[in-house]
Parts: sequence; C-alpha cells; structure tokens
Amino acid sequence: MRQRGFHAIVPAGGAGTRLWPLSRSGQPKFLLDLTSSGRSLIQQTVERLTPVAESVTVVTGVAHAEAVIAQLPGLPADAVLAEPSPRDSAAAICLATAVIAQRHPGAVIGSFAADHVIRDVPAFHRAVVEAVAAAREGELVTIGIAPDHPSTAFGYIKPGEQLKVDGAPSAVRVDAFVEKPDAETAAQYVSDGYRWNAGMFVARADVLLDLLAQNRPALHKGVLELAQAWDTADRAEALERLWPTLEKVAIDYAVAEPAAAAGRVAVVPAGIGWDDIGDFSALAPQLPDVQAGDEDRSALHILGDVDDVLALDSSGVVVARSGRKITLLGVDDIVVVDTADAILVTTRDRAQEVKDVVAELRKQGSTDLV
Amino acid sequence: MRQRGFHAIVPAGGAGTRLWPLSRSGQPKFLLDLTSSGRSLIQQTVERLTPVAESVTVVTGVAHAEAVIAQLPGLPADAVLAEPSPRDSAAAICLATAVIAQRHPGAVIGSFAADHVIRDVPAFHRAVVEAVAAAREGELVTIGIAPDHPSTAFGYIKPGEQLKVDGAPSAVRVDAFVEKPDAETAAQYVSDGYRWNAGMFVARADVLLDLLAQNRPALHKGVLELAQAWDTADRAEALERLWPTLEKVAIDYAVAEPAAAAGRVAVVPAGIGWDDIGDFSALAPQLPDVQAGDEDRSALHILGDVDDVLALDSSGVVVARSGRKITLLGVDDIVVVDTADAILVTTRDRAQEVKDVVAELRKQGSTDLV
Repeated sequence: MRQRGFHAIVPAGGAGTRLWPLSRSGQPKFLLDLTSSGRSLIQQTVERLTPVAESVTVVTGVAHAEAVIAQLPGLPADAVLAEPSPRDSAAAICLATAVIAQRHPGAVIGSFAADHVIRDVPAFHRAVVEAVAAAREGELVTIGIAPDHPSTAFGYIKPGEQLKVDGAPSAVRVDAFVEKPDAETAAQYVSDGYRWNAGMFVARADVLLDLLAQNRPALHKGVLELAQAWDTADRAEALERLWPTLEKVAIDYAVAEPAAAAGRVAVVPAGIGWDDIGDFSALAPQLPDVQAGDEDRSALHILGDVDDVLALDSSGVVVARSGRKITLLGVDDIVVVDTADAILVTTRDRAQEVKDVVAELRKQGSTDLV
Repeated sequence: MRQRGFHAIVPAGGAGTRLWPLSRSGQPKFLLDLTSSGRSLIQQTVERLTPVAESVTVVTGVAHAEAVIAQLPGLPADAVLAEPSPRDSAAAICLATAVIAQRHPGAVIGSFAADHVIRDVPAFHRAVVEAVAAAREGELVTIGIAPDHPSTAFGYIKPGEQLKVDGAPSAVRVDAFVEKPDAETAAQYVSDGYRWNAGMFVARADVLLDLLAQNRPALHKGVLELAQAWDTADRAEALERLWPTLEKVAIDYAVAEPAAAAGRVAVVPAGIGWDDIGDFSALAPQLPDVQAGDEDRSALHILGDVDDVLALDSSGVVVARSGRKITLLGVDDIVVVDTADAILVTTRDRAQEVKDVVAELRKQGSTDLV
C-alpha cells in the first residue's frame, strides 16, 4: 500500500482553546487522547499515514517539539521540524515541502492536520492512493469529506467535472472552495453534492512550490532559502534571520484558493468518518455511550475512567481527568470537564464558546490555567 | 435578656445527605459553615442561644462529640451528651431534659436544632422570651415561623385561640400539627395563617417529662434511669444497658402531637428569617449574590472563595471547596459543588434528590465518599 515517493506532512499547531481545560497552551489538542483509544491525536495521525507514506514529517512549535518526539519515538530525529514561532500554515507546510523536496527529489507530499480523527482508516488509505495518483499528474488534490449533516462549522468544496486520471477514478475538478455557510446554505450545499474541506491535500512538491511562487513570491523565496540551510550547519542562523520575515498566511489563501480559481485543483471525494473535534460536543460521537439513549443527545459520553462518573438521569459529555468522583443528577446535554486544577461546566450547545472562558481567564491574569 | 432557669438543648444529629458532597457522615451539616459567615451552623446556634439561656447542652453522636467540642471551646465539658448510637429525637431530647432537670431543679428547657439558620436573631430572642413565659405556666410552647412562601417542604402548625399569659402576648393555642402539604394545601394554609413547624419548642422539664410518661411510659422510665446515672460513675454501664432498649421515635410523635390533641400546646408566632437549608438550592438566599440579577433565580450564589469561580452567562449555586478554578458557561439554575475528592453537578430544581446520589454511592460501595 506504500506509495513510492509519497511523503506526508503533519502540521501540529493550534492550542484548541475550545477544549480547555483539557487542552492548554503547554498541552495542545494534538497531544491529547480524545477518543479513549490510548493514543493521542498526533499518534493516531502518524500511525494512519505510516502504511501509505515513505516518510512522515511533523512541523510544530519549538515549545512542543520535545513532547511530539516523546510521543512519536519511531520518528527519525530529522522528521520533526520546529518552528521558532507560529507563522500560520503556508510557511509551515511549504517549508516542510521544500525540505522534503531536497531530501527526496521528485517527492509527492500530502498534508494532514495532527488533531483530526478519521474513523474509517481503510477508506482514508484508498482516498490517499487516488489523491497521489492524481497529484503525480500535476494536480493539487484535496480530499473532500462526504458530509453526514449540513454543518455550518466547516468550509465546503464545490465539485466540478470528472477528472480522467489513471488510478484516481473518483477524482473531480474543484470549481471553488467556499467559506463556512449559514444553515440554509449548508443544506443546499449538501443537497448539491458539495464536500467538506478538511484541509487535507496532496501534490507534487514542485507543483505546490510553483503555486506558492506564483501567488506569494516573497514567501516562496524565504521558504526555499530556509530549506536549503535546513540540513546544514546554517539552519539556526537562517531560521533566526528569515523566519520572522515570512508572511503569516493560511495555505488556503496563499495557494489552494488561487489554484482552484486557475482550474488547478482536484478533489477525491471520500467517506472516511472524519471530524476535527472542534469542541467538547464533538467528542460525543468519538466516545462509547455509557448510558445508551435512543439518540446521541440522550446519551452520556465519558472520556476517562467510567468508574469516576456516577450519572443519574443525565446526558452529555464528561471528561474525567482528576481521579475524583464526578456525580451528575438531572442535567441534560451537559458538558463537565474535570482536571487537576480547573473544572468547566457548560452545555453541548454552548461548547463553541469555551474559547471565551479562556479569553476571560487570560484577561484576569490566570495564565497558569490556560 | 438571660431567662432565669431557662436551659437550651441543641440536638445535633442527621448527616444532611441532601448536602453531599459538602456534608459527609464524618462531617455532618451542623459542623459546616453554609452561610459564608465563618461560623458553622452549630456554632451559630449555640451563640444565638447563649444570651437568653443559663446553659446550652448539645446532644450528639459519639462519632461527632469530639468535633463538636472542638468547635465549641466555650462549652463546659459536661454540656455535650454523647449518644452511643442514633435513637431518634425523643430519646435524645428527653435524656437531655432529664439530665438538666437533675442539674437545675425547676428548669425550663428549650430545644433548637443544631443545623438551622435564623437571620433575625433579635426577633428570635423576643420569641424565646415569650415562649419561656408561656412555658412557665405549664404549656408546651412551639415557635411558629411566619411563612414567606407556601412551602411543601415543612410541616405546618394550625393556630387556635389567643392564650392569656403574662409576658407572652402573641402566644396562641395550637389546634393541630399538620404534615407537609401539597402545593394547593400549602397555599391554603398560608392564607389561613398557619405557621411553619421548625421543631423548636420550650417547656418546663417536668411538663415535658410528664407528657412523655403519659404517652411513652417505657421510654420515660429508661430516660429517667439513664439521667440518674449520668453524672455518676455508673453512666457507661447504664448507657450500655439502657440505650439500646430505648424506643426510636421522633419527639413530634411521642410528645408534641398527642399533647396538641390534648390542648396542651401553645405557639409563639415569629418572623425570624428561619430556614433549615434542606438542600443546595436553599443555600442561595443565605449567600451574597455575586452576579446580581433581577430576582434570586437569575443570580449566582457562591459558598467559598469567589475568586475560585468564573461564570459567564450562568446562574445558580456554586460551592467552591477544593481551591480549583470552577468555570461556568451558559448554565442556568445550576448547582456545582466541588470538593477535594468529589464533585456534584445538578440543578436547583433537582437539589432535593441529591440524597439519591448518596444512596447510589453507598450501593456501589463508595463508602469513603459518603
């Protein structure tokens, strides 16, 4: 199943403030086990890519490089690229692409976020194999998730005509990337066959870097110069000199959207059980139901030791991380997150606003808690 | 203000399982500070009685005698009567009455639960003074609380004709004690001028013991024999021999109700800001509003360090006892109780059912937590 010349990139950034107090600045979402699998999200991501890729390269902040290496002992030492400071996804992914292109001339790269879940790994592998085949033909290839509901939390991909590429029978042209819609528009998108944009894409390294050069020449120049120094004694000097000058821009804006407008992007549609676990409510479908209900909303979902939780007539999501007994009585769609130094009580409907709690804690100077 | 010959009894029993996990079998409700006053309920009770009574005697279980003595260093050593096991209120109060009658011939006693709150202490003192005056005339005198809402959680006192006793101008005959009513009946009771039965009563020791002798001769005999041995070297032997034989019965059934039926009971009506803090919802009016609302239900009430709580768009009752940060987001009428080893999340409407959580924990063998 391993695709010759295919190298995976795993950008590992973002604190996941909507998952506070479980996630912290020192313990970001990708380092957490959010599925009761015993593996963190980044461990699952790398393990999912290993069977199809010749190598996996992680790009993360210097603050988290040590923890990433500790969680991924099988990764070669040079496979973790540490950014001195966050400069958004274009710099991170294109630097990794340029480094890989040097190490493995002719490489096809694929970028896959470190903090997403994919429940159907065989389907994911089939999609990657198709995406690599289409990428070899010069396409920038995204993987488009089959929506299972009209989500307003994700951007969508508008599919166009069938592509005719050997080995990628389901690939189609991307007419456009569209922003997170309102509920009505989302329903229309779903009925029109749009796909969720999960930010996963595959391309030849030279194609991606060419697209960057066309759209962001200064960023392209900086990234290439950095990559040339990366595996030499000059890395530290080059990082110090060049990194702060790189434009902070998302790869969607810097590359994917202009490329789509130019008819250079394809999508491989896939039903792979994908989720980005954007908040505590989204944890629910990832966890076993302890107290089964007729539907998801009437069930109680527990992340942690189920023996730590006693629930009477209650539903929602409980995260048990302190070893204390958590008892619930007559609370529905509740979210309770219990950690050693902080506890959060909210509802599944308000789970997106947990970032406001973090903002308020920062404002109050409780930096030790965030 | 001290009433000559008046001696107070403070029965300190009952775990208060509706206040779990704050109250535990080893840390019952009466030992807790539930009003952010810095004083436990039993300390407040004794301090409230000291200005009007010649002595205060506490009756409590052996398991709690040490903690009671530690909280009440001003009490003489012989003022705490320790019961080997709980035998309900008639045995406890009548034993204390008989011991006081021996120590202070001609005493008038008054019994006041250790775990109630009274916000208007001067009004309470005025009521006690009237009750003592009526008691000297041979009445069993209850203090009847002016209801501020048609509660279904308390028994009621049906008032009858005016009593004509010097020093007790507001005392009236009690026609009957009635059980906790349903909501409709409660509303009728309130409009008919009924009073809440707070279980507070005052009587001459000889009158109370005579009423016990008439209604429960065996219990009377046992209590008297025990009292005779109490201040002698025979106490331990008498306790071991007699205590287990005493009938387990509430003083309401053993004395107050039959006495009312015989026209022997009076009531002094009083508005004293009384509450028995029967559950966490009842804590709310006892605590300062941190986040003021138009009415009680829209406010957030905190027992503990207010700096430990961050609430956004939330109302209810929070008990902060672990030192951890408790954050609430978008939860209304919530109850969150955070202790070192257990946490409770429920609603004010369900607060009465917290006893079911304790029952379930016992059933599951979590005896260390209850």
